[in-house]
Amino acid sequence: MKAELVFVGTELLLGEILNTNAQYLSQQLALLGIDVYYQQVVGDNYDRARAIFAQALERSDVVIASGGLGPTMDDITRDVAAEAAGRPLELNEQIHAELKAWFERRGRTMTENNARQALVPEGAAVLHNDRGTAPGLAIPCGGGKVIILLPGPPNELRPMFERHVVPYLTKLTGGAPLALVTRTLRFIDIGESALEEALRDIITQQSDPSIAPYAKTGEVHLRLATKASTPEAGLARILPVEQAIRGRVGHHIYGIDSTSLEAAVGHLLKERGLHVTVAESCSGGLIAKRITDIPGSSAYFDFGFVTYSNTAKMRMLGVPAELLEAHGAVCEQVVAAMAQGALAAAGADIAVAVSGIAGPDGGTPEKPVGTVCLGLAARGSGVWTRTLHLWGSRADIRDRTATQALAMIRRHLLGQRV
Amino acid sequence: MKAELVFVGTELLLGEILNTNAQYLSQQLALLGIDVYYQQVVGDNYDRARAIFAQALERSDVVIASGGLGPTMDDITRDVAAEAAGRPLELNEQIHAELKAWFERRGRTMTENNARQALVPEGAAVLHNDRGTAPGLAIPCGGGKVIILLPGPPNELRPMFERHVVPYLTKLTGGAPLALVTRTLRFIDIGESALEEALRDIITQQSDPSIAPYAKTGEVHLRLATKASTPEAGLARILPVEQAIRGRVGHHIYGIDSTSLEAAVGHLLKERGLHVTVAESCSGGLIAKRITDIPGSSAYFDFGFVTYSNTAKMRMLGVPAELLEAHGAVCEQVVAAMAQGALAAAGADIAVAVSGIAGPDGGTPEKPVGTVCLGLAARGSGVWTRTLHLWGSRADIRDRTATQALAMIRRHLLGQRV
Repeated sequence: MKAELVFVGTELLLGEILNTNAQYLSQQLALLGIDVYYQQVVGDNYDRARAIFAQALERSDVVIASGGLGPTMDDITRDVAAEAAGRPLELNEQIHAELKAWFERRGRTMTENNARQALVPEGAAVLHNDRGTAPGLAIPCGGGKVIILLPGPPNELRPMFERHVVPYLTKLTGGAPLALVTRTLRFIDIGESALEEALRDIITQQSDPSIAPYAKTGEVHLRLATKASTPEAGLARILPVEQAIRGRVGHHIYGIDSTSLEAAVGHLLKERGLHVTVAESCSGGLIAKRITDIPGSSAYFDFGFVTYSNTAKMRMLGVPAELLEAHGAVCEQVVAAMAQGALAAAGADIAVAVSGIAGPDGGTPEKPVGTVCLGLAARGSGVWTRTLHLWGSRADIRDRTATQALAMIRRHLLGQRV
Repeated sequence: MKAELVFVGTELLLGEILNTNAQYLSQQLALLGIDVYYQQVVGDNYDRARAIFAQALERSDVVIASGGLGPTMDDITRDVAAEAAGRPLELNEQIHAELKAWFERRGRTMTENNARQALVPEGAAVLHNDRGTAPGLAIPCGGGKVIILLPGPPNELRPMFERHVVPYLTKLTGGAPLALVTRTLRFIDIGESALEEALRDIITQQSDPSIAPYAKTGEVHLRLATKASTPEAGLARILPVEQAIRGRVGHHIYGIDSTSLEAAVGHLLKERGLHVTVAESCSGGLIAKRITDIPGSSAYFDFGFVTYSNTAKMRMLGVPAELLEAHGAVCEQVVAAMAQGALAAAGADIAVAVSGIAGPDGGTPEKPVGTVCLGLAARGSGVWTRTLHLWGSRADIRDRTATQALAMIRRHLLGQRV
């Protein structure tokens, strides 16, 4: 079944509002296994809207439209859709009575134009609006096609879609609806092209579930997707492919679906009863911020040291002045001393420290912008240091630095220090 | 002149991304006085996309499309548009060389498919991409019509539109080019409705420049916009209105256009040669992160204390244990002690401290989620404390906390403690 979305409203064409209904309805239809080939936006103009509905009905089985169902003269969608469906409008006494009651409950008189909202195309099903006055409509058209009209405000459209349109469409697709089932594997410490290389044969041989990589700042996601009659049936098709992927690059998978790296690291720390601390120069508080983005992070995080100047590194973390003088603040010796100092000062189990040049200024030929040193110290293990050469804007470099620091904690916890 | 927007991308039809480009481009075209009658979204399918372009070219003068300009096989927009315009694709040597250089600078080899991005329809103008590899294209078609292709990522599309498409369209609309001139006034410590109330007569009497308020998390922006033959002429129309606004609420304006609050505060600190420090509990490093987002912040920021636990507040900042025991960590006495402790430990001129309940758990009837205490200590002035009742998600509450902390520093520096 092919669906098409039509949005009616001059405010969309003027950019006055963001069309969040387009994303919401597309997501919902994908989850129902209904293909969407087109989305269209048209203004409050009768002739143009009529042409759009006629075209949509020509090429799609279900036309879902939102907006323009209100009481005023520029709310044209009901009339346009009735004409496209070839079904005359009739006054629905029940809706009319409900509208009157709605206004009475609020101590207001119903103005005449509000009665327009009680007009229903002959043979159409009425979809109740729990949050406003304009009901939705499902209008059967020739050839088994249907137009579904929904109100524009998202807080009216969403409950109406979930309560009334989903059952309607499920019946229309004939009992066994196909749900889109997806599972996103989140990778760290491997690039998009290296990941594709490692999985090339799996990706090319595999068409169901489909496998799509997405590069994010400092990490890569791989989305496995299939359509099935139930979530369980879909998962049963996805999991063997996931297992094959895990067999090759499983140690790079830190989480599934919406799990963030900081949540995954937090989970490991909590599980093991360990406390972490951070000593941050170029990231300036971002690592601590990401760790504490997670509710309940107080179970494993107490102290963070933002040591932006050399004085702060000496005073808060006991980094020797000679070290800073001899090598500058961006070197592996300094981050090692920062991590050890933070570990002791916080009485933590693990400390991660970063120092680098986030730019746009401050680079030198030996240490260009993007040079970042990371150090990790832990009770009972030696200090582990790394130097990275990152790229992008100041914000990108800081984001990647924080991601790499979190990734180091993860690798340390999993015994994957390299 | 009538424009039509076409968005190419299966990810839009699946609802995987929100189409913010639709709103952005519609707004921009409205500001240029160009009517938009239709927006369309189509997937990465050659035949369907070709039909959409043909239809758009039939009924509109300018077709602006975004997405599908990348290097891979499913990036079809360039080919489809060239066919719709009836202009064969040719390899553009200069773009090809630039692409190669782009990859070389990053120490990567350019794979063959990347060369697709150097294909240009005969006679098309190339729009330079400052942020990515795929250039934009302006393709003249029959009858004075034109197709403009832009990349999908908003951070590439927006600068390209403003730098290259606006002048191009201005020339196309003929003769006296009208430039959109805007100036955004950024307000802090005043809500959207209070701001509208204070400026109601100015806003209603004023049609050129137009005045539009936008509520942001914790702040409000007011955009003044006009069309003029030169930026200077536009500014001459805007500035008297800005002066009238400043006469009423000028002390709430912290910056113009893209100046962030942290940049404005940093500028004040640098100007006065003062150093600031932060002591953060519920914001967990976010205030330090925002301060150090600004290049050159090392001129006024050295130390940050992330004291997430009570132990950290005692050990790093010398907050008395009795205080924490008597009142809990979220109270004005504790943030006062935190600010004084940070001021001393960092040897700074100003210290701001925050402690609160960011949620989703941890609220009590007396101190519900969103209760946040802020304290500011400064050399030679008393301690200033405030208790706020914030709302929204954990992330919202933390964002607003950081914004309010920065706002307190600003008010202290400007002698506006209330």
